[in-house]
Amino acid sequence: MHDDLSPLCGRFLTAADLLGRRWTGVILRILLDGPRRFGELTEAIGTISERVLSERLKDLEAEGIIERHVDVGPPIRSEYRLTQKGQDFWKVIDELGKWAERWVELPPATGSAKGVAAKAARAAPRKRKTA
Amino acid sequence: MHDDLSPLCGRFLTAADLLGRRWTGVILRILLDGPRRFGELTEAIGTISERVLSERLKDLEAEGIIERHVDVGPPIRSEYRLTQKGQDFWKVIDELGKWAERWVELPPATGSAKGVAAKAARAAPRKRKTA
Repeated sequence: MHDDLSPLCGRFLTAADLLGRRWTGVILRILLDGPRRFGELTEAIGTISERVLSERLKDLEAEGIIERHVDVGPPIRSEYRLTQKGQDFWKVIDELGKWAERWVELPPATGSAKGVAAKAARAAPRKRKTA
Repeated sequence: MHDDLSPLCGRFLTAADLLGRRWTGVILRILLDGPRRFGELTEAIGTISERVLSERLKDLEAEGIIERHVDVGPPIRSEYRLTQKGQDFWKVIDELGKWAERWVELPPATGSAKGVAAKAARAAPRKRKTA
């Protein structure tokens, strides 16, 4: 019953589980516009706690979707950027954005979001050729 | 700063938040193959509790993505099916599946999933014209 079917099934479940963690889609959306520092991500998302953002970034790093790049400076700076595996996620995010544009109606009071987040979410993700 | 940019931003955040609830992607994936009864969904997913599945279905119904159809019978039967808004989600799920196929490596012990889930996750979602 689940011989040659199971690998793809397991893959889909893994991917859905990954995206099914709060903020993951938003983090990927922002990083598709380029590398961001931790503080820039918290500012862009606005309503995420530092603890939760830190957990999500660790998850994504463990999955090989983002990587933390450290510039030894001075001053020392680190930023998060998408790996090739992460970059390749743009089509999913792009389709999610298109769907949202077609179907999501906003209640008048909750339509706005601040600064970087608004800009990041509006711009179309950069389209890249898949490997 | 967030005048004409904000509506789309809010839409994307809403859509990402919706998909960022565990099992949502998997439930939509299964329903893209056709209506399913509650018991069929629990069987297909395998590891979801009835309480959590019930919550997710209520969320999706409240968002207008699925609808519960009751056949008065006898016997009375009810099943969940995608609305047009839900059907239109197939591209997101399709791209997620493609990404998973390219990038997700399965550990040998966790590659399998049971019966309906395996079949549902393998078959390509039915492609529909967007409204």
